[in-house]
Amino acid sequence: MKNKLSVQPYKGTRDFYPQDMHYRNWYFQVVRSVIESYGFEEYHTPLLESYDIYTAKSGEEIAHEQLFVFEDKKDRKVAIRPEMTPSVARMVAAQIESLTPPLRWYSVANFMRYEKPQKGRLREHWQVNVDIFGADVIEADLEIISIISNILKAFGADQKMFKIKLNNRRFFNDVLKYILKVEDESIRLISKVVDKKTKIPDEKYKEWLKEIGLSQQKIILLDKIFSSTFEELVQMMDVDSNGIRELNELFYLIKETGLDKFCEFDFSIVRGFDYYTGTVFEVYDASPENKRSLFGGGRYDDLVGMFKDFAISGIGFGLGDVTFQNFLEIHSLIPEHIYKKPIVLISRFHDVPLKEYFKISTLLRENNISNFIYFSPDEKLGKQLRFAEKKGASLAIVLGADELTDKKISIKELKTRTQITVKQDELISKLKEML
Amino acid sequence: MKNKLSVQPYKGTRDFYPQDMHYRNWYFQVVRSVIESYGFEEYHTPLLESYDIYTAKSGEEIAHEQLFVFEDKKDRKVAIRPEMTPSVARMVAAQIESLTPPLRWYSVANFMRYEKPQKGRLREHWQVNVDIFGADVIEADLEIISIISNILKAFGADQKMFKIKLNNRRFFNDVLKYILKVEDESIRLISKVVDKKTKIPDEKYKEWLKEIGLSQQKIILLDKIFSSTFEELVQMMDVDSNGIRELNELFYLIKETGLDKFCEFDFSIVRGFDYYTGTVFEVYDASPENKRSLFGGGRYDDLVGMFKDFAISGIGFGLGDVTFQNFLEIHSLIPEHIYKKPIVLISRFHDVPLKEYFKISTLLRENNISNFIYFSPDEKLGKQLRFAEKKGASLAIVLGADELTDKKISIKELKTRTQITVKQDELISKLKEML
Repeated sequence: MKNKLSVQPYKGTRDFYPQDMHYRNWYFQVVRSVIESYGFEEYHTPLLESYDIYTAKSGEEIAHEQLFVFEDKKDRKVAIRPEMTPSVARMVAAQIESLTPPLRWYSVANFMRYEKPQKGRLREHWQVNVDIFGADVIEADLEIISIISNILKAFGADQKMFKIKLNNRRFFNDVLKYILKVEDESIRLISKVVDKKTKIPDEKYKEWLKEIGLSQQKIILLDKIFSSTFEELVQMMDVDSNGIRELNELFYLIKETGLDKFCEFDFSIVRGFDYYTGTVFEVYDASPENKRSLFGGGRYDDLVGMFKDFAISGIGFGLGDVTFQNFLEIHSLIPEHIYKKPIVLISRFHDVPLKEYFKISTLLRENNISNFIYFSPDEKLGKQLRFAEKKGASLAIVLGADELTDKKISIKELKTRTQITVKQDELISKLKEML
Repeated sequence: MKNKLSVQPYKGTRDFYPQDMHYRNWYFQVVRSVIESYGFEEYHTPLLESYDIYTAKSGEEIAHEQLFVFEDKKDRKVAIRPEMTPSVARMVAAQIESLTPPLRWYSVANFMRYEKPQKGRLREHWQVNVDIFGADVIEADLEIISIISNILKAFGADQKMFKIKLNNRRFFNDVLKYILKVEDESIRLISKVVDKKTKIPDEKYKEWLKEIGLSQQKIILLDKIFSSTFEELVQMMDVDSNGIRELNELFYLIKETGLDKFCEFDFSIVRGFDYYTGTVFEVYDASPENKRSLFGGGRYDDLVGMFKDFAISGIGFGLGDVTFQNFLEIHSLIPEHIYKKPIVLISRFHDVPLKEYFKISTLLRENNISNFIYFSPDEKLGKQLRFAEKKGASLAIVLGADELTDKKISIKELKTRTQITVKQDELISKLKEML
């Protein structure tokens, strides 16, 4: 063995073998069917985008550290998409005059970020993105919360397993402005630190706050803010604000529609991206051993501003495959046997010409029964059947020269190795009965 | 408007709006269902691969001119996959000891090549890849031909619309060796020129042959070879060869199984990639105005050799979305209305609380009826209904305060604007009847 190339996939990416793909297809199918039940339509975007759409609006970490960015042969600076929002914003901007908002759009796509691979974080991951564009009404926020609850319920999760934690960026900003009494740029920097709060040690958190200029007194006040309820914060603020009004309306509708058992207010939810402006939320695993954010999203008012002078807002979320798989595993929500379409083996003998097996195979396919013909008639039947079992087949067709003459055919159940013989024209009805 | 970013997708790539995605999903669903009816399993690979897997075996044009290649932050040279074969070979090699060949594997994925965008050629395209690994028997070649015929038939194409043109690389090499009497390296170079034959002017074709050292006499002989039938070539060769045996066996089985009406021998089929070794084929549009190759594939004997010292062969094909869409359009094979799951609008009035509409929406979803609630009760019913039509809804639920009191509900057919009123507990059965 000399100069053999590595069989490892690129760092932080995964090979999906059939059993992995089978899981992934099941997973996204559950999510898709909930999303489509709300009338959402699927879209997709190119893999590469111009680099500048990520520098304009995304969180700084993505644009500067996590992008896979390079120049093409004509010196265009391009990046592999690290998230969906800038791409879909571009698409909406491009056809804004002919589209009829509100748009209920979703996509299932892969994304790449240059991260240090670790549990729950890979360089390439798959994510479903769900957004409502052009509906600046609280009903849209409610619909998104409703979709999220129903996705979790569709996987069999109940209210003890997860919690949707809600906040509002306008409210967050107003609390910092009127209670903590800090200026706009400080608010932005504080939001970045708060977003990392649960992921870093407490000392580091306080150190960072000091670094951005918060006094000891204000850090204590910020702690007090975090331990306060929504009502207490409203009282401390003592001014009217759109953030308060929006949160009040949203929580009223959440209660009215029975979604309150899944939701709670949490002032520490801010989301890392700069583009969020209104409602923000994160879905948390509620089990004590896995208290982490599973996914999240929120409302962004200036969706297409970097492309066109046009006011359109959006609200949505992204749900990946990696973190959420951990959640499903911890709560034993992955079925032991994910449904697979049954497959039938057509075994072969030397004394029957291939064309006879070919006819049976065609007949089965015409009746929507997946099947394959064993390649080599040189192998003994036992070996053919063991191969079929490994490939997940449940039944085998056995046809020898005698049976061919008698216009008969045998069906073998692979699990029990029991066999029945039927007339050829009864084959399909018998197979359908047994599958 | 100052400093607005471009809304154009990256050169040679496409945005898929919902109607485009709806087409793409339909297209690949037709292909998938045929492939799965033969017992194939889906796999997927990472977007990026190490650069060196493309320099080892692919056609030179891809490795040197068409790759999107760059260095990551740790100076690893990586490429966006331009095709599937090297990636899947790596996956097979990685787990060769635990996999049970033959493997029937397929994938649906996107690929990027730095091409000059033109009709039928984009920089990013989507392709289904279908392969049988580890079955060095002619039955596998037959199965692949059978799958291709059935994919085309599943789209409604008949034998007048397409032709599967077959050749064999071993046979091609032997013909050049024994009739044209040229050496191995010349054979390789001639195969590259022949692969381009139909795409370039005849003068250029002859110029290229001269450049690689073919005499005028041999160029004339090569012309004669191309105008010869399989039988004539066999006679001219006057030696026994594996290529002849394989082609004879394959054409015998093709005839036996009734696939001969879709197939023909064509000595000019060689395929661009160096890795093909046995059967090669291309599917041609048979209509006079579009005589072009739609897609193709073949057998490669040394699948995993660059990764492991292990003998495993494969045969398969790749079927893209771009060229094939042209074919479907030319032959009017795209249905006027691609099936879409019906959607119901739930219209809103001011005098009914949102929670009542929410209950109906939930009830409909529980009965597998996709629906959405109109966001604003401020809009007149007419506007709500027009919006629903634009979104492809066929029915609308109408519930005012009086109906709520009477436990009644109205269903409006959007096309005719006719309306019926039913008891609330009859809603689902009536909807199912009308959808």
